[in-house]
Order: sequence, then C-alpha cells, then structure tokens
Amino acid sequence: MNTYGQFFKVTLFGESHQPEIGVVVEGVPAGTVIDMTLIEQDLKKRRPGAVGTTARVEADHFRVTAGIFQGRATGSPLHLVIENTDTRSKDYQHLLKQPRPGHADYVASIKYGGFHDHRGGGRFSGRLTAALVMAGSLAKMFLPYTFETELIKVGTLTDMSSLDQYLEGIKAKGESVGGIVKLSVKGIPVGIGEPFFQKLDAEIAKMMFSIPAVKGVSFGLGFEGVERLGSDFNDVFSDSDGTTLSNHSGGVSGGLSNGNDLVLKVFVKPTSSIQKTQETYDFETKTLKPLSIGGRHDVAIVRRAGIVLENALAIVLADLTLIARATKIEKPISVPQNL
Amino acid sequence: MNTYGQFFKVTLFGESHQPEIGVVVEGVPAGTVIDMTLIEQDLKKRRPGAVGTTARVEADHFRVTAGIFQGRATGSPLHLVIENTDTRSKDYQHLLKQPRPGHADYVASIKYGGFHDHRGGGRFSGRLTAALVMAGSLAKMFLPYTFETELIKVGTLTDMSSLDQYLEGIKAKGESVGGIVKLSVKGIPVGIGEPFFQKLDAEIAKMMFSIPAVKGVSFGLGFEGVERLGSDFNDVFSDSDGTTLSNHSGGVSGGLSNGNDLVLKVFVKPTSSIQKTQETYDFETKTLKPLSIGGRHDVAIVRRAGIVLENALAIVLADLTLIARATKIEKPISVPQNL
Amino acid sequence: MNTYGQFFKVTLFGESHQPEIGVVVEGVPAGTVIDMTLIEQDLKKRRPGAVGTTARVEADHFRVTAGIFQGRATGSPLHLVIENTDTRSKDYQHLLKQPRPGHADYVASIKYGGFHDHRGGGRFSGRLTAALVMAGSLAKMFLPYTFETELIKVGTLTDMSSLDQYLEGIKAKGESVGGIVKLSVKGIPVGIGEPFFQKLDAEIAKMMFSIPAVKGVSFGLGFEGVERLGSDFNDVFSDSDGTTLSNHSGGVSGGLSNGNDLVLKVFVKPTSSIQKTQETYDFETKTLKPLSIGGRHDVAIVRRAGIVLENALAIVLADLTLIARATKIEKPISVPQNL
Amino acid sequence: MNTYGQFFKVTLFGESHQPEIGVVVEGVPAGTVIDMTLIEQDLKKRRPGAVGTTARVEADHFRVTAGIFQGRATGSPLHLVIENTDTRSKDYQHLLKQPRPGHADYVASIKYGGFHDHRGGGRFSGRLTAALVMAGSLAKMFLPYTFETELIKVGTLTDMSSLDQYLEGIKAKGESVGGIVKLSVKGIPVGIGEPFFQKLDAEIAKMMFSIPAVKGVSFGLGFEGVERLGSDFNDVFSDSDGTTLSNHSGGVSGGLSNGNDLVLKVFVKPTSSIQKTQETYDFETKTLKPLSIGGRHDVAIVRRAGIVLENALAIVLADLTLIARATKIEKPISVPQNL
Repeated sequence: MNTYGQFFKVTLFGESHQPEIGVVVEGVPAGTVIDMTLIEQDLKKRRPGAVGTTARVEADHFRVTAGIFQGRATGSPLHLVIENTDTRSKDYQHLLKQPRPGHADYVASIKYGGFHDHRGGGRFSGRLTAALVMAGSLAKMFLPYTFETELIKVGTLTDMSSLDQYLEGIKAKGESVGGIVKLSVKGIPVGIGEPFFQKLDAEIAKMMFSIPAVKGVSFGLGFEGVERLGSDFNDVFSDSDGTTLSNHSGGVSGGLSNGNDLVLKVFVKPTSSIQKTQETYDFETKTLKPLSIGGRHDVAIVRRAGIVLENALAIVLADLTLIARATKIEKPISVPQNL
Repeated sequence: MNTYGQFFKVTLFGESHQPEIGVVVEGVPAGTVIDMTLIEQDLKKRRPGAVGTTARVEADHFRVTAGIFQGRATGSPLHLVIENTDTRSKDYQHLLKQPRPGHADYVASIKYGGFHDHRGGGRFSGRLTAALVMAGSLAKMFLPYTFETELIKVGTLTDMSSLDQYLEGIKAKGESVGGIVKLSVKGIPVGIGEPFFQKLDAEIAKMMFSIPAVKGVSFGLGFEGVERLGSDFNDVFSDSDGTTLSNHSGGVSGGLSNGNDLVLKVFVKPTSSIQKTQETYDFETKTLKPLSIGGRHDVAIVRRAGIVLENALAIVLADLTLIARATKIEKPISVPQNL
Repeated sequence: MNTYGQFFKVTLFGESHQPEIGVVVEGVPAGTVIDMTLIEQDLKKRRPGAVGTTARVEADHFRVTAGIFQGRATGSPLHLVIENTDTRSKDYQHLLKQPRPGHADYVASIKYGGFHDHRGGGRFSGRLTAALVMAGSLAKMFLPYTFETELIKVGTLTDMSSLDQYLEGIKAKGESVGGIVKLSVKGIPVGIGEPFFQKLDAEIAKMMFSIPAVKGVSFGLGFEGVERLGSDFNDVFSDSDGTTLSNHSGGVSGGLSNGNDLVLKVFVKPTSSIQKTQETYDFETKTLKPLSIGGRHDVAIVRRAGIVLENALAIVLADLTLIARATKIEKPISVPQNL
Repeated sequence: MNTYGQFFKVTLFGESHQPEIGVVVEGVPAGTVIDMTLIEQDLKKRRPGAVGTTARVEADHFRVTAGIFQGRATGSPLHLVIENTDTRSKDYQHLLKQPRPGHADYVASIKYGGFHDHRGGGRFSGRLTAALVMAGSLAKMFLPYTFETELIKVGTLTDMSSLDQYLEGIKAKGESVGGIVKLSVKGIPVGIGEPFFQKLDAEIAKMMFSIPAVKGVSFGLGFEGVERLGSDFNDVFSDSDGTTLSNHSGGVSGGLSNGNDLVLKVFVKPTSSIQKTQETYDFETKTLKPLSIGGRHDVAIVRRAGIVLENALAIVLADLTLIARATKIEKPISVPQNL
C-alpha cells in the first residue's frame, strides 16, 4: 500500500519521529542524468520559512545510496533518505488521551491496535511528503513536460500580493486557513492514460487525495462548470493536433490527455492543528474538554503544498508515460479510418 | 487496465456497438446469496426513460453464466453479460472525419492508431457503466452498509421538484446540462483504507473519475470549505466511537474511514452530444465546419449517473473492506497506549 | 487472483459444470489481425481423442463477443467464451463424502466453506485450461517467436513412437501416467524479463505451476545439471549477439532472455483419477474405504498438456515483451562502457 | 519489479558495489515484537566462512530506521539497510570487454543500454539476497510455521558428512559445483493459496526462480515421480484434517496447502565464477579468448543458499497467509455439502 506505480514505482517509508524517512524509486530510465540540485531545490520549496509556515525547520539533507553510477541512473532502484533531526517527541505526550480534532490520531489508534507511533502524527504526518517530493524530482528529470503551480485562493483571499499580511492576521487569531492550488502541465502528448481503470484524471486524483489535507480535486472548469450549458462547456476542436478553442475539460478527454494543457485544481483544507483552544472528547473523563495543542504548526499548510502536489503529479505522469510506451501502436493506419 | 481491485476484482469488457458487454467479478465471498432482483433493479435505475434521458432504451437482460451454484456464490469469478441489441451503427458513419466536441473520438483515434471501434463511442461509451452497475450490485449483496444517493444540483437548478420542467426547457434549446451528485454511506467501521497509496478517499476518487463525464470529486465540505477557518472546519470528537459533532471531512481522516458517514460530491459535466449544431474541425477541409450530431442522446446524463456512481462506490468499499480483513490487528492492546 | 499480467492481461472465468467458461484478454495491440483458425486449431490440439485421453469430448465452439472490429483487435479487451455442453453432473454426486486422492475436492471444501461447485472439480478442473489456450493463441498472433513443444518422457517411456501401445497397456491396468514436456522458443530478443521480481524464468515458472498437475519446472539442463562442474555448466559466449556454444542455462541469464533459445522442462504428474479402485478416507464412517471413481478420465493428461503449456508460455512472453517496451532504454551509449 | 507481494510487501534496493543495499518491508502486523537477534542470526547463516565459500566477508551490520516503536512493529513499513563495506571495484575493470560465462554481464549491458553498474555483478549480484534474508526474518516473526532446510546433494555428493573434504577437492581444481536444497514447512493450515494465478506452488516457484542461480523447482516427488503409476503417486487421505498416508504432492493440492508438510526441492547451479581459465568472446578482437576471473568467489554458492531460499519462502507464505485472511469464508456451512 506504500508503493505507487507500475513502472515509475515509488515506495515510501518513514514516520514523523523515527530516525529516517525516504523513498525507493524505480523506473528512472538507465542513463538519466541525476540532478542533485533539482532535488535540493524542490525540497527547499517545501521547507517552511515563509509567513504562515511552521517553526519546525529541518535541513532535509538527503542521501542517495543506491541506483546511481557515474552520475546517471543505472536502471536499478534509487534509494533516497533524509534523517529526521528536529524531533521534539515530548510535545505529543499529553495528547494520548485526547484526540486532536481534524487529525488521524484516533483512526490510527483503532487501525493499528494502539501500536502505531503517535509522535507527530507518525505515518500520517505531512513529513512523508518530503519523500514524495524527492521522487517527483526524479520524475521531472526525464519527463519533457513543463509544470506550473499556482496558489489561486487562500481562505477568502484571491489576491496573492497581500498574502503575508493576510496570514499574519490568521496567525494572530490562533487560527489556520486552507486554499486552492492550480496545477498546469504543458507538453503532454495525446493519448496518455489507459482506460478503463488507469485513466489520466483518475490516477492523478488518486495521487492527489493520497496527500494529507487534500479534500477536493477537479479538472478544467471543475464544479464551477455546473451551471454551463453543453454548447458552452464543450471544447471545440480547432486543429488537427487536437487543439481546442477553450480548455474546459482541463486537457483530458475520455481519461486520456488530449493535446491541450493539463489543468487541475486541488483543495487543501485548513491546517488541523491550531493554536486556539478547541474542545474534544477526553477518553479518561468521557466528556468534552478543552484541548490546547503544543507543537509547531503551519497556519496555512497550503502555502507549502504546491511543490508536493506538483511533484506528486510528476510521479503519475512518469508512470503513465512509461506505460503508454508499452501500449503504443507501432503501425497506425495512415489515414485513420475510424477517426 | 480494465481490471480494478485486489480482492473484490472487477474486469470490464465490451464496447458500445459490439455483440456483448459484461464483467467478470471475483471476491464475492463463497456462500453469498446472489440476488438477481437487485441486479435487475439497479440496471433499471440506470436505464433511460425519464425526462432528459436518451431514447436508446435497451432491455439490458443480463445472464450470469459462471460463479453461482445453488443460488450462492461459489468463490469463483462470476461472469455477467448483457447483449447489445438496440445499436444503430449507421448514425455514426458521418462523424469519421469530424470529431465531436467533448467526446473521446479524436484521442481514441490517436491512441489506438485508427483501429478502435468508433461506433457509439466504442469503449469510451457510457454503455460500459451498465457492467459496472452489475458489479456494484454484487458488492452490495455482502456489504452491511447503507447507500444514499441524491442529485443536489442540475445546471442552475437546486430544487429537484421542478426538474422535469427544467429539463424540457433545456431539451427545447437542443442543449444539455450537467449536475452534482451527493453520495452518502452509513455503517462503515473505523479504519477502512490503507495508507499511503490506498486510502479510502484516494481509491474512491480514482473510481469516480474512471466514470465518463465526471470532472470533480470532493469529500465533506469540499471546495466550499475553503473560506472557513481551522476551528470552524475541524470536526470535534464527541464520543469514544469516533463520532464528531460536525462532518466537514466527509467521514475520512488520514485516508481512513473515521466512524462518521462517508459523504462525497461528484460533478458530472453536461452531456457532450447535443442536438444543437456546433462547430468543429474537419479533417478533410482542414477548417472549422458546422456539425450536427445524430444519434439518441441524454439531455442530462447526470440523471442516470446516480446508480452508476453509487455502485462504483460500492465496488471500492467492497475491495477495501476485504483488504482491511487482511491487515486487521488481531490482538490490539487493551488500553491503547498511543491513542 | 484470476487475472494474470500487467499489459497482456488474462482474466479467467468458469468452472467445469457451469454454463460457460471463458477469458477476457487485454493487451492485444490494436490492429492485430485476429486469426480465428489459430484459436480453433489450438483448441483442437487440447481436445481429447488420441489414445490415453478422456471420452468427454466437447466441440469447444468459441465465440468472440467483444474487442474485434473489421477483423482486427480494437485495443479494448477481447472476450472469448465456450459453452460447457457435455456435462454429466450426476457422475460426481457419490463423491461428496469421500474425497478423491490426488484431487482438490477436500481443500476446496475447506477453502470455500462448502459452497464451491464440486461437480467435475469445479474451478480446479483442467477444463479451464481451454480458456488459457485461447488467450495464448491471441498472444501468438502478435509475437514474432517460434514455439516448439515436445513430449520427451511418458511414465517410463522415452521413445514416443510406441506411445499408443504403451498407453493401452496403462489403461488396461486401470492406471494413469505422467510425463515431461520440453518447451522451446526461438526468436526472443536479449533482455526480456525485469529483475528482481519479474524475471523471465520466475514468471514462466509461476505460470506453469498455475496449470493443474504440474509438479516440476526447470530451465536448460535443470536438475540433471547438478553433477556438472562449473566449467562444464557455464555457457561460453561465441558471438557479439550473445550466442553461446552450449545452452545449459536454457536461454536465461540473470532472469533475462540472453539471445539463445528459451528451453524449459515441465513435469506433469500422473492423472489423479484412475479406473482402478483406491482407498480413501470416508467422512461418514471415519475410516479408509475403497473408492471407485466414475466419470471419463485421461490415462495420460500429459498428452493433451503440450498446447496448454505452450500457450500459457506465450501469455507470459506477450506480457514481458510489452513490458520491455516500457522499460527499454531509448538512447544506449554507442560503445557499452559497462559491458 | 523490485517489489513482491500484496500485503507482506518487500521492496529491494541496492547493488553489489554501491553504498547500501536494503529492503522496505510492509505488512508486518502492528504489535509484532521485532527480534533483532533473529535477523542477525539469519544474516550470519548466509555469510561466507565455511569451506567452499567466498573470502569476501562482510560484517553485514544492519540498521532498522523506520517502522519500529517501543520494540514492536508500528504497522508502517520497516526500512532495513546494510552498508557495503568490503568492495574492491578494481577487480572487475578488466572484464568490461569480455563477458564472463554464466553471468548476467552481457544481458545487463544490453538491457540497460550500457549504463548499469557492472561492478561485482551490480543488481544481479547475489549480494541482494542479504536484503531478502532480512525480509524473510521479519516474516518468520509472526508466522506460526516451522521451517526445515537441508542440503541433499552437492555435485555428485549425497553424504553431507564429507562435504568439506569434497569441496576442498573442487576448489583445488579451480572449479565450482551446484546442489539441491530441500525445504520443508510444518504447520501451514489447509487452504493457503489463491487460484487461478496466485497458487501456493506457483508463487513459491516464482520467488525461488527470482533468486540468482536457481535453475529448477519441484514439489513433493518432483521429476523423480515421472515413472510412477497413478495409484502409486496419489496421496491417500487418512484423516478428516486432510492428512494423507504419503506426501508425494509436497503438501499442495490444486495450488492450495493441503494440511500436510509443504515440501519442495530447489536446484542451484554451479557458481559461474571459477578460478580456472575459461574461453569467452572478446568484443575487441571479436574472437574467443581465454579469461581468468579475479575477485573472490564461492566454490559452492549452494552452501550459503539455504537460508536465502528458506527466508524467501517465508516471504511468500507471509503474503499468502495474510491474503487468506481476506478471502476466508466467515460462515462455512456446518456439514460441507459439496465436499
């Protein structure tokens, strides 16, 4: 369950407060030049520091200890690890009897019979997304696609120029906010995705919802398109390469890339951990009691989510792109009879 | 790619205008009483007939030719088939050189090198969802959950009591509309779903996007929750069984069922085929030319989508419920030390 | 569990005495000409008739009801079915309390809680191999490989020219015999197979042992090579295309095809059902009691196994050949630096 | 391709001469006490030292850096690594133009376009089996089965009491030998294995052939049973728990465990690397030329293979045992009607 993909295969390991987190990645084509700087840059984008992000800052020094020879991928799995250094496990002790609203503490306790590592959210921590980011960096090293990622809404804010000020206000209240990220990819050829159960949009949605705090995914117009009439929703073909006049479908037709930009929107919920005191059930007293969460938290985790979503998307595209090589028709009929 | 699931495994086959469509289903526990009437009823719900649905009405007589003995599942795969009877292949001939806006004709042509069966959308036709419905009926026969499915918006309409009238108006314009379906499931125990890559919401989203015309999926509040502050989004625990005061997360925490109702919303785009003439690229003249689509179409396919989405959801729940049996901890520690 | 493969994907259904058996096959490249005669011929090879084979002869008329358009594969799954016609279910009634030695009756009863279809061995019947044969025929339609299959030993017999006479003698005793089949494939390019867990020999072995009655699989010299010294076992390279002077490894090195003929041997045990009376446990009397098996049986099922093993092998090669297209390096370095 | 299993899932990484080898293991039930000593002991059994084994001795100190909390499995993946310390990469430089007979050098070069890490056999090295051993140790920690592993033949030798002397003789000749290992497992309940394509024997065979140098696998009597008549091969049931008077089928019926001991034989070929000079193709001169292999090699790798095969077997049993929990019938009919 901790492995994703058929050819570009990603296996995650690690938990918030254990010695290491990391990832085994296979499917990077042998000969791919491994760009360590890209991995570093992508990890840096995920790292806190900006207004609205947590005070737990880790250097995230990564090591690659298998799968590279003379600077290139060998065709064997790559193994990338990051040590967990800045862990303050004591912060979580007092939460043992009172599950934090919005968190997975309670379900984890039931699921793993009480044997899970509860510190810092354990395997449910956003910390694991650092491993996902590294895998995505590897995907981008051989995919000839261009990724664009944009925060289009944070709380009630749609003008990102006043973002810092807005988040200072949220922080002052001891609150948190969520947001919507728009992801676009240019350069995907027609026909990536495999019906019926490995469609491009379906695989992407699965990956997006795998990321903690994601609560909505849509392509093209998304839910906002509900009020449009068919003639106003349909994308009209304007060229022989599949280009359409509009892109309301977000670059996906019948679950396949259609030659236009891939465009999706992802809703990230407000950070569950807030400074403000909340009520929650107490397993000892069997009543609702106030809870004050310690630890160091993001006011707007969505601010750091962009690179996570982008690289997760890259993982899906890497896998489906390799898959399309296996299913590609070698000799199409010259004039498509069944267009 | 036409197979979904690990234990409750569904393999679809068939295309719109070929002799048969159907499904092989494995994982129905041996001994499950097979309720033919339920399959029939579910297929009937999907069948057109109401205002706003297509005039292509097929009886959808199904046969089960393997996997049943003395009225019960044997533990072997069940094989269910429906003959395609009311096919009018000629309707599609004139579309060969002019791809229909919103349809998969063009991408299919590229993907399959021109060898696909273009008639009626081939494998991209909504027709295959009849097979999915049958598989979902089987899932419901052994799942102790209660499903509720509701159309909450169609085009600009939110009051469903005037739905017929509204759709008559849309039809009169030669147009189509989409809509939003809300799905709820009661009775799911805590802990269904497997992190990191087989989470409950992630698997459901994948399945929903596998269904033609789906363009958005969200859980709980979904995108509408973006303007809420953390304290107003978090679901406060109110009991030892995981019950929360609100259900903004839609019954999923950390990718696991959390003991509350599972609630999701699915956006189905307006039917691509409309009676109104549209422009589209013509591969012969290499210009935009008007296109008038024949065939028999739904004004609001979303009206028939409910049972498809519901039964598709049942398939995912069946698979993850069986999986949870394999991963279940047999001897939890009596007082969860790590709550 | 009834599905094999990643790209050339085979899903079996059916049981010995249910209305239909069949197979859903995906991964046949769109545009492949479907040769119905080959399927028919392969089914005929499997059909009894020769000395030593069962009197249950079925016409095995098959239908293909999805996945073909204008004589070619469309890229969608193919659906092939055979009706079970010559079933005499009464023959099996008296076996309910006395499990047949060598058969799966007992384990099936436990595994499926008593709900399995016991007639004719149900899903454990060799009858399902007819479906496997059809899938293999499809594989051969697009694989540019040459298959050779040879019976090299039957019981104590190694000279196949006196086979009929030998089997008449076995039959006269009310006995059965097993045998060894040698399979060879020419034309496989270097590098088919994916380490570590999808190696060519590993996948083939898995498939062979999936076939009822197979009890041993070896490549090249196999177990007979145990007494050789290393210098006498190693295959010496004699050309730049990987050709070796001998082929003791059976065409597989490191789990990959090595450019020489693929060669394996498969041991098929003696048919479990024999005319001769055997003792077996009686669940009613709780003692050993004589059992006389009715029904119509093969004296040497191995005589019909050749085409089953061959086509099963073709399925594996089809899948791994498609997979190798996805993992192939597009730009190898011109002079392999790491030979 | 480097991942095995559905629930007990093993992902290998590393190559012979890269910094680390290791394994990610998921599916160890939360709460399982992790016995570090068992891992250490199993690794020690694999380590050279005895007569006939290589002089490359590595301490094989392993680290577990994720998945354990308070001495028990958390339910998250475990991550185990071993550093490669005693690597002498220069030994392999002169082999670049002359592929070693019996090795994967040549096929790897083609498969990975010349970009693979050729040192010490890279990913094809037996070194990776250390990672497999660790995963198997974890499997044994929660499986209630008893494993017995025995070397039954080495070269021409069947009396193991004179093994050291025999191997000294082989070594003196600069030669190598192979052997046959017999594996037995007691305590497996009836019904482990899933037809049609996840049968117990099929999965085991796949795993065994994944291990370098394995060239044959058989169950029960194996190939030696070919000369027996049916009545002499069939195992006669003698009790209501499935016990049979003989065990010629090796504890597997219809691909399922049948309540008797699981028994298989595995043929390991002679070590490919020998001290004796061999001829092989030279890519520069394009002729056969003598080759003298440096490095440090095993005379009889089979001597160290036992624990690898045993623990690999444990991995398969762990996975299928967990799977059987998901497919188990909860309410069997009290008196099996279909026995």
